[in-house]
Amino acid sequence: MPSTPRYRQIAEHYLQAIRADALQPGDRLPSLRELMQLHGVSLSTALQVCRTLESEGWAEARERSGYFVTRPRRLKIVPMDEPATDRAPDPAQFVGIHEKVSAFVTQRRAHAVHLNLSTARGAPALYPAEAMRNAVTRALRQHPELLTQATPSRERTPFREAVAQRAVRVGMALSPEEVLPTHGCIEALNLALRAVAQPGDTVAVESPTFYGLLQVLETLGMRALEIPTSPQTGLSIEALELAIAAYRDIKAVVVVPHLQNPLGSVMPDAHKARLAALCEQHGMALIEDDTYSELLDAPAPARALKSFDRSGNIIHCASLHKVLAPGLRLGWINAGRWQARVEMLKYAQSRSNEALAQWAAGGFMASGGYDRHLKQLRASLRTQRERTAEAITQHFPPGTRLNLPPGGLQLWVELPRQLSSVAVFDAALREHILVAPGTLFSNTTRCDHYVRINCGLPWTPALEAGLRRLGEIVCAQYAAGAVRAAA
Amino acid sequence: MPSTPRYRQIAEHYLQAIRADALQPGDRLPSLRELMQLHGVSLSTALQVCRTLESEGWAEARERSGYFVTRPRRLKIVPMDEPATDRAPDPAQFVGIHEKVSAFVTQRRAHAVHLNLSTARGAPALYPAEAMRNAVTRALRQHPELLTQATPSRERTPFREAVAQRAVRVGMALSPEEVLPTHGCIEALNLALRAVAQPGDTVAVESPTFYGLLQVLETLGMRALEIPTSPQTGLSIEALELAIAAYRDIKAVVVVPHLQNPLGSVMPDAHKARLAALCEQHGMALIEDDTYSELLDAPAPARALKSFDRSGNIIHCASLHKVLAPGLRLGWINAGRWQARVEMLKYAQSRSNEALAQWAAGGFMASGGYDRHLKQLRASLRTQRERTAEAITQHFPPGTRLNLPPGGLQLWVELPRQLSSVAVFDAALREHILVAPGTLFSNTTRCDHYVRINCGLPWTPALEAGLRRLGEIVCAQYAAGAVRAAA
Repeated sequence: MPSTPRYRQIAEHYLQAIRADALQPGDRLPSLRELMQLHGVSLSTALQVCRTLESEGWAEARERSGYFVTRPRRLKIVPMDEPATDRAPDPAQFVGIHEKVSAFVTQRRAHAVHLNLSTARGAPALYPAEAMRNAVTRALRQHPELLTQATPSRERTPFREAVAQRAVRVGMALSPEEVLPTHGCIEALNLALRAVAQPGDTVAVESPTFYGLLQVLETLGMRALEIPTSPQTGLSIEALELAIAAYRDIKAVVVVPHLQNPLGSVMPDAHKARLAALCEQHGMALIEDDTYSELLDAPAPARALKSFDRSGNIIHCASLHKVLAPGLRLGWINAGRWQARVEMLKYAQSRSNEALAQWAAGGFMASGGYDRHLKQLRASLRTQRERTAEAITQHFPPGTRLNLPPGGLQLWVELPRQLSSVAVFDAALREHILVAPGTLFSNTTRCDHYVRINCGLPWTPALEAGLRRLGEIVCAQYAAGAVRAAA
Repeated sequence: MPSTPRYRQIAEHYLQAIRADALQPGDRLPSLRELMQLHGVSLSTALQVCRTLESEGWAEARERSGYFVTRPRRLKIVPMDEPATDRAPDPAQFVGIHEKVSAFVTQRRAHAVHLNLSTARGAPALYPAEAMRNAVTRALRQHPELLTQATPSRERTPFREAVAQRAVRVGMALSPEEVLPTHGCIEALNLALRAVAQPGDTVAVESPTFYGLLQVLETLGMRALEIPTSPQTGLSIEALELAIAAYRDIKAVVVVPHLQNPLGSVMPDAHKARLAALCEQHGMALIEDDTYSELLDAPAPARALKSFDRSGNIIHCASLHKVLAPGLRLGWINAGRWQARVEMLKYAQSRSNEALAQWAAGGFMASGGYDRHLKQLRASLRTQRERTAEAITQHFPPGTRLNLPPGGLQLWVELPRQLSSVAVFDAALREHILVAPGTLFSNTTRCDHYVRINCGLPWTPALEAGLRRLGEIVCAQYAAGAVRAAA
């Protein structure tokens, strides 16, 4: 980069060292005198280096001690606005997400993808592969017939026991028999919706929400009613109240109270209590998708929405897929007063879950290794989220906004309003980078200028370069838009 | 048994020896002189012993050599009638099987079950537990990230490859990518039905059929139209033609062409060709449930119904559950022209099947061990079916009929018409024996005097005693009915 001024080149050198963890938060940067000597520059250039790092949030001056590396410059991230919750509710409508997803999948398959930022998925390196392999072989040694004996549907497996035991920490009291294993959280959601609603019925969902849920509603022939959702506190209770007034026939409400996908919002306990009471009062089933709560950075586990259940009206669904082993599809459901119906639907749909995964995962969950793994996973994801957020703030065009959620696997990024996430998706894919366009997260056009970026990949120079390139692609779209607007 | 005549006591002694394999087919029985000496009886009693064994099919006289043990007396089994296929078709009706199954399950849970004859399931001892354990550990050694890496939906797993390769033998040409793994055959059937029909639509099924299919139809809100089915040749094509004339809106036909559950019938190839053409002609999807074909005792594998498909109109569903590992729920589907829709429904319902089971099962299927296992399994099941049929013929009341199917895990037993299978179920359960009452195999009352008996358990004295006791229970019901009729 011959046109880059000297101070910027030197600042970049230290930035790289910080990003590579060679310099960590709290480390002292070279003094002005050292910078002058090391790089053969004047005092004013050395000063410009330090002030650049400071103004971009990478370093802070401490009186009479010099400059020190700070935490990544979170403060510079421009947060999103809260949604308008007083507008007339959206129409409840049949979902047409499949066509969009299909187009996305078809396009994707036509290109080699070198950097996949489109999922909400952790890299294999973040999960305890060896411990899980050992858990599998141990289960097979202790129970030689696990593979050749049919699994009775009411068997008290170590998995059901471990889930029931951990549920106590988040305010639920379930017996192991009340924990019904499912093929991931997605099967649990299918069963929950089939238990409480019929084709044609209206179900309230968060907006934006993950396209997996919209696909489920579409395949079940149910109508989605999108409720404005705060990037901070989750589903807007006020907006839901307005929707109830407009639609008296809402059969169920589906929420992800902790680290909502894609927003990353976390619902405060007071909201959970209000939501539980509201649903009970209006005879709407409340379905909790609790896939991410173990990824929440917080001093104590968050109370499950289900812990506010007073009448069996809340259905709790969750999974180990994102937190223990992405190669397992092991989820569970407790369906409150619909438990018998859900058990019947599960039996008719796919019979009991296999025993081996339940013995292996349950064995590991009952060990101290599980909590140690979760702690480490949360720490890795925190770093990855912060680094990704920082790269986006640095490389994306002005007007980009995002919230840094207190946990989880992804960032939801609002691009300048005039940008199209589909155009960004197309342009990025041509350069072998895959992002999830916002169009997939709503049945409306409201999210068309958002993208969801996965933070599940360990931070590497290649990832950093990919995010920088993605930023350039978005900036090019932004510049092209500005040219069009001026013309 | 003090009232049992002496010759009968002695005959029973030799029967027990035959059943316990102490005497095997071809073995010489004691001579008349030896019998007289051994048991201290007269020549006429000794003769009566031999003639009893002979008349009941256990022994045969060879000129100048004495009596020899024969194969079990298959010839004495009274076969069932063929169904009437020229009657007006049943009404297509919503299924109400769940209530019956619930009642059955509730009752069952209230009793300790010592002998479970109600399933269609092989005992763990019949399956290659050690080889499958080794296959799992080998897969994990070769692919250390199988448990921690998400499974891509289009991954070419060894399981898909093995299924595609074996499909060639039965007349199908599928690429591994066209084999979609599912959670057992039951998930495959759910997906197939959801792909081709909507709630309220009419689906033609065999009558009797397994309650699993009726449950699927009930939970999907579809109507079942029961088509008379031959215990020998399966679904009656003539009866289906009559039904088509009466109901022009049949959306799909579901058949088990090989070893139908519960009948054990096998559809001749000529019927398969006619059925395929008929469904194509009338725009009805044809769904083949091929769960049992590997259990068929035949010199060559039976041609899949799907091999008669000329237009993508046949959906093929199958599973390893009954043939390789009851602890795995690994099935598959090829949905012909509905493949893309089924892939989408599968993704929305439960995502891709886990990789580990696919690597382990696929690895074993690609080895010679799989065919050796199947051969041994078929031989074991043949013995068990024959022994069970023999015990039923011996101990059940006159008027009992059954067909000895050429393979599979079960016998479908017709009791004298005045008997109620529910009463037999109740009485047997009080004695800790579980049978599947015929009421569960039809949405009509047509099967109320049938029971399905599992033959998946290795033959033991306890099993033999259980079947004898079951026979006594049925005989008591029969006698009580005769008394009631006389009163």
